Amino acid sequence: MPGISSFLSRSINTHQIYGANTNVGKTIISTILTRAAALNYPQEQTWYLKPISTGEAKDADDSHVKRYTGDLPNVTPKCLWQYSDPVSPHLVAGPTPPSDHSVLSQVSNYLNMAASSGPGSFFLETAGGIHSPTLNRVPQADFYRPLRLPTILVADPHLGGISTSIAAHEGLHIRGYDTDAVFVFRDNYYRNHEYLQSHFASLSKPIPTIVLPGPPPRQEDSAEDQKALAAYYEVVSGSKLIKRTLEMLKETHEMRREALETLAQRAQDRIWWPFAQHSELLDPGKITTIDSAHGDFFSTLSPSASAPSANLLQQTHDASASWWTQGLGHANPQLTLAAAHAAGRYGHVMFANAIHEPALRLADSLLQTLRNPRFQRVFYSDNGSTGVEVALKMGMRAARVRYAWTDKKDVEVLGMDGNYHGDTMGAMDCSESNIFNESVEWHKGRGYWFKPPTVILRKGVWEVRQPSGEVETFEGLEGVMDVEKRVGGKMYEMYCRRVKGELEKVIIGDGRRFGAMIVEPIILGAGGMVFVDPLYQRALVDTVRSSTNLFSIGSPKSAGDFTPTGDSNAWTGLPIIFDEVFTGLYRLGQPTPSSFLGSNTHPDIGIYAKLLTGGLLPLSATCASKSIFEAFLSGKKEDALLHGHSYTAHAVGCEVACTSLEVMNSGDEEGVWNAHKEDWNTHTTTATTTQNAAAPWSVWSKSWVYDISSHPNVDGVIALGSVLAITLKTSEAGYASSAAQTMLARMREERWEELEGGNVMARPLGNVVYFMAGQKTPVDVLRGVQGVIAKVL
Amino acid sequence: MPGISSFLSRSINTHQIYGANTNVGKTIISTILTRAAALNYPQEQTWYLKPISTGEAKDADDSHVKRYTGDLPNVTPKCLWQYSDPVSPHLVAGPTPPSDHSVLSQVSNYLNMAASSGPGSFFLETAGGIHSPTLNRVPQADFYRPLRLPTILVADPHLGGISTSIAAHEGLHIRGYDTDAVFVFRDNYYRNHEYLQSHFASLSKPIPTIVLPGPPPRQEDSAEDQKALAAYYEVVSGSKLIKRTLEMLKETHEMRREALETLAQRAQDRIWWPFAQHSELLDPGKITTIDSAHGDFFSTLSPSASAPSANLLQQTHDASASWWTQGLGHANPQLTLAAAHAAGRYGHVMFANAIHEPALRLADSLLQTLRNPRFQRVFYSDNGSTGVEVALKMGMRAARVRYAWTDKKDVEVLGMDGNYHGDTMGAMDCSESNIFNESVEWHKGRGYWFKPPTVILRKGVWEVRQPSGEVETFEGLEGVMDVEKRVGGKMYEMYCRRVKGELEKVIIGDGRRFGAMIVEPIILGAGGMVFVDPLYQRALVDTVRSSTNLFSIGSPKSAGDFTPTGDSNAWTGLPIIFDEVFTGLYRLGQPTPSSFLGSNTHPDIGIYAKLLTGGLLPLSATCASKSIFEAFLSGKKEDALLHGHSYTAHAVGCEVACTSLEVMNSGDEEGVWNAHKEDWNTHTTTATTTQNAAAPWSVWSKSWVYDISSHPNVDGVIALGSVLAITLKTSEAGYASSAAQTMLARMREERWEELEGGNVMARPLGNVVYFMAGQKTPVDVLRGVQGVIAKVL
Repeated sequence: MPGISSFLSRSINTHQIYGANTNVGKTIISTILTRAAALNYPQEQTWYLKPISTGEAKDADDSHVKRYTGDLPNVTPKCLWQYSDPVSPHLVAGPTPPSDHSVLSQVSNYLNMAASSGPGSFFLETAGGIHSPTLNRVPQADFYRPLRLPTILVADPHLGGISTSIAAHEGLHIRGYDTDAVFVFRDNYYRNHEYLQSHFASLSKPIPTIVLPGPPPRQEDSAEDQKALAAYYEVVSGSKLIKRTLEMLKETHEMRREALETLAQRAQDRIWWPFAQHSELLDPGKITTIDSAHGDFFSTLSPSASAPSANLLQQTHDASASWWTQGLGHANPQLTLAAAHAAGRYGHVMFANAIHEPALRLADSLLQTLRNPRFQRVFYSDNGSTGVEVALKMGMRAARVRYAWTDKKDVEVLGMDGNYHGDTMGAMDCSESNIFNESVEWHKGRGYWFKPPTVILRKGVWEVRQPSGEVETFEGLEGVMDVEKRVGGKMYEMYCRRVKGELEKVIIGDGRRFGAMIVEPIILGAGGMVFVDPLYQRALVDTVRSSTNLFSIGSPKSAGDFTPTGDSNAWTGLPIIFDEVFTGLYRLGQPTPSSFLGSNTHPDIGIYAKLLTGGLLPLSATCASKSIFEAFLSGKKEDALLHGHSYTAHAVGCEVACTSLEVMNSGDEEGVWNAHKEDWNTHTTTATTTQNAAAPWSVWSKSWVYDISSHPNVDGVIALGSVLAITLKTSEAGYASSAAQTMLARMREERWEELEGGNVMARPLGNVVYFMAGQKTPVDVLRGVQGVIAKVL
Repeated sequence: MPGISSFLSRSINTHQIYGANTNVGKTIISTILTRAAALNYPQEQTWYLKPISTGEAKDADDSHVKRYTGDLPNVTPKCLWQYSDPVSPHLVAGPTPPSDHSVLSQVSNYLNMAASSGPGSFFLETAGGIHSPTLNRVPQADFYRPLRLPTILVADPHLGGISTSIAAHEGLHIRGYDTDAVFVFRDNYYRNHEYLQSHFASLSKPIPTIVLPGPPPRQEDSAEDQKALAAYYEVVSGSKLIKRTLEMLKETHEMRREALETLAQRAQDRIWWPFAQHSELLDPGKITTIDSAHGDFFSTLSPSASAPSANLLQQTHDASASWWTQGLGHANPQLTLAAAHAAGRYGHVMFANAIHEPALRLADSLLQTLRNPRFQRVFYSDNGSTGVEVALKMGMRAARVRYAWTDKKDVEVLGMDGNYHGDTMGAMDCSESNIFNESVEWHKGRGYWFKPPTVILRKGVWEVRQPSGEVETFEGLEGVMDVEKRVGGKMYEMYCRRVKGELEKVIIGDGRRFGAMIVEPIILGAGGMVFVDPLYQRALVDTVRSSTNLFSIGSPKSAGDFTPTGDSNAWTGLPIIFDEVFTGLYRLGQPTPSSFLGSNTHPDIGIYAKLLTGGLLPLSATCASKSIFEAFLSGKKEDALLHGHSYTAHAVGCEVACTSLEVMNSGDEEGVWNAHKEDWNTHTTTATTTQNAAAPWSVWSKSWVYDISSHPNVDGVIALGSVLAITLKTSEAGYASSAAQTMLARMREERWEELEGGNVMARPLGNVVYFMAGQKTPVDVLRGVQGVIAKVL
């Protein structure tokens, strides 16, 4: 649901009231609290909201609250939707119920209206239990999650109520809610309150349990019944216990508000941020305070919320997919449950000659997803950077064993100019030195870097630009991406010649030795979202694979020994490593970007992370072929791949990754991206992709992308899968550029109606601004972001 | 609970039956299943067990089952404890209820007895809801967790039952149970079954929901009631639906069994294990299949369980604390809930100039725990290895800035022989080359390595042994560890002289330059559990800190510029890095091992991981002083600390770490280790520790450790905190040693009565075998392990 903001007001103290079950006294507790707040704070407003009520109107919860607080002038009870059948809302909703989004919008609007009326207390009573379905069958605790209101749980005093109460609290807890208080009626037979009080006090963050006398027994005579209830409310709402409880709730609210508002400032003395020049961060306003996240949005502290009535929180669209990890949205309950299940089953499993089920299931699932006939083995590590180090160790060893080098000569890598592979030293050394890494002690680029031709859409025309500046144009992206067709052409021959020439120069001419080639396929991420001509990467792979004569120089063995027999998927020339940490697993619309390179142009080693766990926790997989794996087989322990971390193949990460892959794979199979695919493939172009290369498509609207490419401030644009990158026209190029900063600052500061008042947080890469969607980002959010971009350009 | 094994039998198909609430028909479903199993499988046995029943015996659930299955010869209904009050067990238990351990043991014994009686079905009916308290107030789902039985959930057909049913399932799910089927009675008014059926079918791993007609309404006349119920059972238990359901349950059981038994074999084609020479792993028997874990035990596939009646699973004590990560036990629900809460609140938070509450809370909590007055800032990364790379970047930059080196001369580290800091290239380069890392391409040790004197207990006497072979003896460990007292002595002077001499030789003599010192304090972990004389490390730190004149050689600045003013915690000489990844956070009994080095001998940079998250997920923190931090401040972005990972300071990790630290800290404050401390401090020794140095203690019994140190096969032993390491006498030293392997193989293969039939999985380091407890390992497990060790020595 785009734009519906979490809610934390300076002026009103708001709670959502959940019940451990139906019939536990939610409405009675709500009435007690509403009445007590109105009594104890006569200068303030007290709000009671029951968004959806089922059962006859006269018995409805807001009528009940009205009846017992009607004598107080400062109470506003309200119900938004009233259905007469006393059953679950999803059964009475009828064929066209109001959408969840419209219901939540109205609740949100009502909260903001209440906040603007000055100080007060607000109690929102939910319906049924925590998972009771809404009109559209969404479990309630999930439905209300975007608002993330502080929570009161009404526990169950009946037989079995200890269990339902704990289960309800845990259900709320794992959905990211904070429960401020538990209320329960005293029952001296079952004595649930005693157990629950000690249970909730023993939690990591203890929750106070308020024990109240139960309401009077229901009487036949309705007037008598009401009289007895009125007397009950009079006593309980007026009690010192409730007064103290309300004070506690106010204090908690104040502490929450203050903690949130001072978080950035307090962090400035403690936190060392990554990649940050702290002398530029002295103003706490430079730090974004993130209170929670949901779907495609962060809930951030609103810097402009100075009015006492203002909502402190604001929806901020996560336009960089949270460092490219997001596919299924923040705080996805499916992933949470997968993580918690594995944590509850295993905790930690030491992966020393051991196996657990999620590790193997993930290996199988990953290899099936990637459909790379070369891959046979999966090695797990913790993140992209360590995954790259593993890949390097694999590739270089395989080359050394094959070519039987025994001298001490340095072995380097072949790589690509503008590549980035991570921040550990081995990964850093796979990149050319630049202004950013050159001052890091111990870093030195240990390789030769090819300069790639790039692809960009300029004024409606796709261009392939050579490093020399030469440009060839294509009518459609399909033309650029139809590698199988282009392999027959002159450009391919030129690329192969160029690569071969460079290799000869550095190997024969300069006498250097190489042990592996590492490449980011199709899009160089951190290097500036550079779209590389896939034909060039194809030529690179083809040429390296056919240049055994060059790479084997210095080997004591003879040429005949270098051709593996009996394994058509064995590496030749050099092991090819694809760093697909960023581009893999549907980021570019395909399970692997290597499918854009055409028939059987698969890496020998591939690294996967980012979308692998959908942002829940770190995990990386380095996949390798049989011929790579076999280079480590010997009778000696010290020839093994000597790499491992405590959490190698940890069960929690593997279980989450299985779930994440499964959701993306089944989405792909079910055609959830078909509308986007059609958008990109029905455009008027002549070229059609041949069978072997994957067809390019994007979640970003094709006509809009073409329009933007002609914008006067835009130098060019690329869109592929969920990635959109816009190169701005600017005099100063490179990272130091400020045009992008200015544009993004405006997106960040304004509240955009296209996103229902949300702002947009994106990250620049020099003069490139990029926007990255999740794999489940709704179309209205995508189009909203497009609208915002168009406005700020 | 030591030794109580998870249960998965070849012969009997076992299910625990949980209810979403009380009064949802658990006993009726149990009766239906028991009767149906007996009818459909007349050649097999059918078991029904209600471990604890409350309510009058004649109405008890086992009596109910007996009544309606009594006509069948192959049914055995049983109840173990019967209480007459119809309330929760914890209320009727009385002052001395049977212990949870004895109850679970009896259940376990009963299961094994049933399994040995040939093929059949076993239904264990729980009491109340999933969290209903046991006799000793433990929530039931936690209580039964060690058995981890396959689960049947009886859902709630009443109003509100959708919510309680989903919440109950999630509560079981996050405790690591697998639910094979959900049963629910049809109620055509509330229609919960429809919603639940589609809910459970939509899960990542769908669960079949079996909808049954409800039982006949209760009748006044007890004979009539029984007649109606009997007719009901006759129909439902005889139905095709139930027959198919039983078949499905049998199939699931078969699939589970087969998946488990073939897991290792299937993994052999897919998995690339860390540190493993795969040519030695060709036999699937070399791979340990881990089905789950709980507390201090893994549940592993039993290789010897060939009998059809055998339990396939076996408790295996995790004697290496799961690669040193375990403090609070495997599958700790507190940590699971912390992880799930943060996942539900945030998912992923991009930590680019952003802050979230758990990141700051952890930074504060960590610095408070460590009580290192130098530390001011916390930088987060993913694991110990990346944390070390961060520390290196910090330290070397600080030195370069202070000493204003501008030439291109190599900057090295000072380190310690036998240190190990991780497997990424930068971390590897902080260790001396050895047989294991020397063949890794790109690795070269970039430092000078001090040879440390070591501490060991031999034949009841603590020895400090110099690299030269010289030995000094101490009467007690307290004497060795009383660094403050020893600082006055000759040994300290000798150490300082030695260190100074070595520094002069490599810096003045060899012209080398150093940028930081990195040290594992007190115990070198992967290097062989080597206990280093703390006085030596103290001398090392003192000498390095006072040798600015040496380290500043080559600086264009003058001596006066090297003394920081106004910051008494600023580094001098070289930045000192303590790699406390393994030894930190109570592993050695203290929040930080640096407290063993005496007054104010704190590092400038420290790295923490392992126990930080109690094994739930990877996270590392590198802490640094103000003077380190300030070396990165400038007007230039490129002078920032250029390091970061996608999951830097990820909220899930931080939240779990906060919980883990809090549990350990409050345990420390509450004196949970007091008995161990007393054990070590009341022994007859003359030395007493002075105020400034922390007193050593261990969870391993002192007298037992002394005894072991005199064992004929033992060369020496160390015990500190939760670490115990025994050096075996052997002709061949080093990693290749097989004496340790032989000893550990026996511990692994036998079932030890000391651990109620469990075996012990430990890892060797050369001729050293080590045993590492968690911070909450019960004393009976510790003493059990000691008993096993004594037997196999």
